[in-house]
Amino acid sequence: MRIAVAQQAAVADVAQNLRTLERVAADAARAGADLLVTPELFPTGYDPGRVRADPSVLPHVVDLARRTGVALVVSEPHDGAITAVVVDRDGTVLGRYVKTHLYGPAERAAFRPGDGTPLVVQVAGLRVGVLVCFDVEFPEAVRGLALAGADVVAVPTAIFDASVARVLVPARAYENRVALAYANHVGPAADGSTFSGGSVAVGPDGRVLAAAGADEAALLVADVDADDLRRAREVVDYLPERRPETYRLS
Amino acid sequence: MRIAVAQQAAVADVAQNLRTLERVAADAARAGADLLVTPELFPTGYDPGRVRADPSVLPHVVDLARRTGVALVVSEPHDGAITAVVVDRDGTVLGRYVKTHLYGPAERAAFRPGDGTPLVVQVAGLRVGVLVCFDVEFPEAVRGLALAGADVVAVPTAIFDASVARVLVPARAYENRVALAYANHVGPAADGSTFSGGSVAVGPDGRVLAAAGADEAALLVADVDADDLRRAREVVDYLPERRPETYRLS
Repeated sequence: MRIAVAQQAAVADVAQNLRTLERVAADAARAGADLLVTPELFPTGYDPGRVRADPSVLPHVVDLARRTGVALVVSEPHDGAITAVVVDRDGTVLGRYVKTHLYGPAERAAFRPGDGTPLVVQVAGLRVGVLVCFDVEFPEAVRGLALAGADVVAVPTAIFDASVARVLVPARAYENRVALAYANHVGPAADGSTFSGGSVAVGPDGRVLAAAGADEAALLVADVDADDLRRAREVVDYLPERRPETYRLS
Repeated sequence: MRIAVAQQAAVADVAQNLRTLERVAADAARAGADLLVTPELFPTGYDPGRVRADPSVLPHVVDLARRTGVALVVSEPHDGAITAVVVDRDGTVLGRYVKTHLYGPAERAAFRPGDGTPLVVQVAGLRVGVLVCFDVEFPEAVRGLALAGADVVAVPTAIFDASVARVLVPARAYENRVALAYANHVGPAADGSTFSGGSVAVGPDGRVLAAAGADEAALLVADVDADDLRRAREVVDYLPERRPETYRLS
C-alpha cells in the first residue's frame, strides 16, 4: 500500500480548503497513492470555537475519492464531535471514528468526545484504523486499534508541539507493529499559535519512512506492505507477548 | 535526585562482577548520585540457561549501599524469577519486583514470570518504580507504575537491539511524565550475541538527559527533581486525561 500524508495550511474558508484538498489528492494520485491522510478538520480549518458542520464537505470528498481513485481520510465536525471519515477509492464511505481524547478547554467546550468505538477498515489490502490527534498520544488508544486488527493507523492531527511526532509517534508504530501516518497542519492557527508541521509516516519497525519540515506544505509518500508488517512482527510480535492479566490500568 | 546508570560488562564470575559493582558504586557516590541502576542480572551475569541464585549477592549489595551511601537497583535470580531489588542508602531492602514479561525461550525455560505486582518505593524524596528489560517495551507496564505513583522508573536490562532505548524508552517517559533510567550491559553475551549498550536516562518530557555509546562501559549521571516532573505535567498531564472506560485492551 502506498500511503500519502498531506501537510497543508487550511484557511477559514471551506471552498478554498476543498480546492487545496482537490489539488493534494490529484498530486497523491499522480504519486500512485492508495490512501491519503489529511490534517484534523482540514476542510473547515481547525478552529474549535468557530467551525461548524458543513454539509458540502462529505459529498465533495466522496466525489474526489471517486475521481482520483485515492481513498481519503478526512475529518470534520459531525454530530457535535470531531469525526474522521474513511472514503474508499470508489466513493464508498467505509466508516467514521469519533475523537475520544479531546484536547484542552476549547475542544471540550465545542465538541462531545467519542466512546472509543474503534474503526478498522480494509483499504488496498491492509486494515486501516483511525485516531485523531491527541488520541495517538495515549498508548491505550493505538493498542486498542492494533488489538482490533489494524495494520496501519491514520491520524489527522492539529498540533503545535513537534515533540509528539518525534517521540511518541514512532513508538506507537514500533510497540504495536503497525504503520502510522500522522498528518498535521502547517502555518498559523486561528488562535495565533503556529502549527508545528512535522507530519510523518512511520513503518511497523518504528522507522520514519518520510517526514515533513516544520513550516512548509508537503506531501509525504511511503510504502508499507504485508511483508514489512510480517518482518517487524518476526523480530518481536508484541500483541501475543502481552500479559493483560497482570496490568493495573484502571 | 541524582540518578546514575551503570553500563558495564559482566562476566561468568560473581566475585568479579561484585568487584565491578563495588567500583561503579564508588564512582557513583563520588558523582553525588542518590540512586544507581545496574544492568539486568549484573552480579551473576546475564545467561538465563546457567545463572543460579547466589546467596552472597544480596548481603554484598546491602553492605555496598551502606558503605557508599548510594541506593542501588540490582537484579538477580531469586525464587526462580528474575528479581530486581531496591536497597536504600542505609542498607534497607525497600522491596523486590519480579520481571513480568520474560523474553524468548531461554528466559521462559529458566524462570517463572511475575504477576505484575508493582514496586514503587521512596528514594531521596521521589517515588521510584522498577521494571526489568522486556517489561518496559509494553506501555501497559510503565503506565501501571505511573498510576501507582512512580516519578522515576528504573529498568535493568540486557538487550542486543539499540532501537528499544532509542525509540521506546523516551516515549515511555514522555507519555507518563516520569523519568526513566535504562541500564544495559555492554560487550559479548554468553550466547555469542553482543549487548547493544545505549543505556539512557530520560527526563519526564522525553528528553534524553544522558546516553551511553554502543560498546564501552559508562556511568551516566542525570538530575531529576520535583520541578522537572511538575513542569512536564503542566504541559500535558496524561494520567488525568486518560479515558479508561473507552479502552479495549483485553
